[in-house]
Amino acid sequence: MPRIVQFYEPGSPDVLRVEDRAVRKPLAGEVLIAVDAIGLNRAEIAFRQGRYLEIPEKFPASLGLEAAGTILEIGPDVSGFEVGEQVATLPVFSMREYGVYGDVAVVPADALIRYPKHLTTAEAASVWMSGLTAYGGLIYLGKLSEGQSVLITAASSSAGIAAIQIARWVGAIVIATTRTGIKKRQLIEAGAHHVIVTAEEDVAARVKQITSGAGADVLFDAVGGGMVGKLANAAALGAQIILYGTLSTELTVFPLLTALRKCLTVHAYRIFSMRRFPAEREKAERFLFDRLSDGSLRAVIDRTFTLDKVADAHRYLESNQHFGKVVLSTRATEADIKEKPSDLTKLKEQR
Amino acid sequence: MPRIVQFYEPGSPDVLRVEDRAVRKPLAGEVLIAVDAIGLNRAEIAFRQGRYLEIPEKFPASLGLEAAGTILEIGPDVSGFEVGEQVATLPVFSMREYGVYGDVAVVPADALIRYPKHLTTAEAASVWMSGLTAYGGLIYLGKLSEGQSVLITAASSSAGIAAIQIARWVGAIVIATTRTGIKKRQLIEAGAHHVIVTAEEDVAARVKQITSGAGADVLFDAVGGGMVGKLANAAALGAQIILYGTLSTELTVFPLLTALRKCLTVHAYRIFSMRRFPAEREKAERFLFDRLSDGSLRAVIDRTFTLDKVADAHRYLESNQHFGKVVLSTRATEADIKEKPSDLTKLKEQR
Repeated sequence: MPRIVQFYEPGSPDVLRVEDRAVRKPLAGEVLIAVDAIGLNRAEIAFRQGRYLEIPEKFPASLGLEAAGTILEIGPDVSGFEVGEQVATLPVFSMREYGVYGDVAVVPADALIRYPKHLTTAEAASVWMSGLTAYGGLIYLGKLSEGQSVLITAASSSAGIAAIQIARWVGAIVIATTRTGIKKRQLIEAGAHHVIVTAEEDVAARVKQITSGAGADVLFDAVGGGMVGKLANAAALGAQIILYGTLSTELTVFPLLTALRKCLTVHAYRIFSMRRFPAEREKAERFLFDRLSDGSLRAVIDRTFTLDKVADAHRYLESNQHFGKVVLSTRATEADIKEKPSDLTKLKEQR
Repeated sequence: MPRIVQFYEPGSPDVLRVEDRAVRKPLAGEVLIAVDAIGLNRAEIAFRQGRYLEIPEKFPASLGLEAAGTILEIGPDVSGFEVGEQVATLPVFSMREYGVYGDVAVVPADALIRYPKHLTTAEAASVWMSGLTAYGGLIYLGKLSEGQSVLITAASSSAGIAAIQIARWVGAIVIATTRTGIKKRQLIEAGAHHVIVTAEEDVAARVKQITSGAGADVLFDAVGGGMVGKLANAAALGAQIILYGTLSTELTVFPLLTALRKCLTVHAYRIFSMRRFPAEREKAERFLFDRLSDGSLRAVIDRTFTLDKVADAHRYLESNQHFGKVVLSTRATEADIKEKPSDLTKLKEQR
């Protein structure tokens, strides 16, 4: 029987159980996939803790949004896909209804996407949520254009790195923030023109210095809380601030006077909303497919865990040591991971 | 010598002085107008108090944004206007540089606008700032469309009334809020479909009831502070919140989780920013001219004061008793105002 990750109550990583379980057949509009790799997201941490925008409807609950693998079975009323095809999932469903942490998963066919053939399944499971988040924030809402400056906070997350890559493709001046100096070099390597270490430097002062006093045109933020006031101070006249995360637990004070003075726009954004705009979603998917194909968008995988070590993987993600994506593999063994930690993304090809 | 209103220090209405003063000639790009009527704005109260987005550059300072009158003299490099023409001013300049409280005023030619001939000068001095604010908020940023619902807070201000009229023209469902029940009937007469008395009713609960649970699509707010959390609760999925005022002195807490859950967009808006978008400004002016011409946008004048009573006029505006615009007239006398308080908007024609 396939392994499925479930939890019976909200809580720490310890609540996660890897259980052997029969999986239901796909219903109308659904498909069953054999999962190769799973990309981990903070959304899943918050969902496990019962602190997400949505809370589990019932227990045991499953979780997980991003997977890549092979179609095993197709439910009624699904067209355009075939059994045996390689696909990834877009996070356009609710974890109250579906979860991809397991050897197999039933997902809505609407969430399937084909990916460029040169990607490994680990890469294919790592690029869509971060890519869609960055595309939606910078291109769709922020309308970032060549020569503009963009501030990307908490930039070493997978969404932050995707934002750096997309902003570079646009031709923008990329300013990344990171809490400590540890990841500064990696951010420069990932494409940031400038890195601000928030524990040591004043964000607004540095952004103004970099932009010759003008401020940043687009500000892409995963933090919230006290960061929002700093963003407003660092913003240019008419800037677009995109808030997509809640890393901070502080109260988010809206700097109304500064916002009025600068005519700022603040978008609270999550890609789940893309469901409501099919035309925009199609544009986003095409953009990301093209950028993955031409190499301007690349998966940055920090570390891979076996499915059995899902609790360790969550603990690691919560420890904030990672740079890029943390991945679960259903096919790698502990031995694989110990032998060639850096080659894991190529596992699929080797088998 | 013409009377000019000035103040020598920030403070209460008592700091306002009506002084006889020679006025400089218009420089390049400027015109001198004979002011007939002046529309009062909260921006001027805040500017007088030294609490506005901009503070006076030097003292004595002049003030005032909206006037209507006749062109007396045209400076160099101005085309398209003639001496003797009837014009109004758009608030697209800074009070640090120009002010219209007086018998005459030098203003940038860029701020001049012609208005439909059926308007009195009091009406012409009353409709542009409120109209531009409402247009910019509801049409340009909010993209309000037929059948959508719009929530308008502090709706008995001139901007609120203009918003009600414009939203009715669009074909939206108009929900107005007012602090107490006193102005409820007037708001219904002004075009609101529903009125929420914020001191007695729960804004979000009432909006949800009116919109069958969906929430308001566009929310147009002059209050800020604690109102913003209520707006987020009253908002529909993907709603546009336009913040254009700071009536509240409370801290504005941004309801980040609710905003993310609903994918809300918050625009901090002031029409001064229209300067940066000439094409948008032209569209706005044409829209307002057309709506004034067809009668869907009408000046609602609460009360007129003589120029000498400018301090009383400010006190009255600050007392929040008004419904619509408070106007200063340079030509009316105390006797005029006592005799026919309701006919004052027609003064121009009678003379």
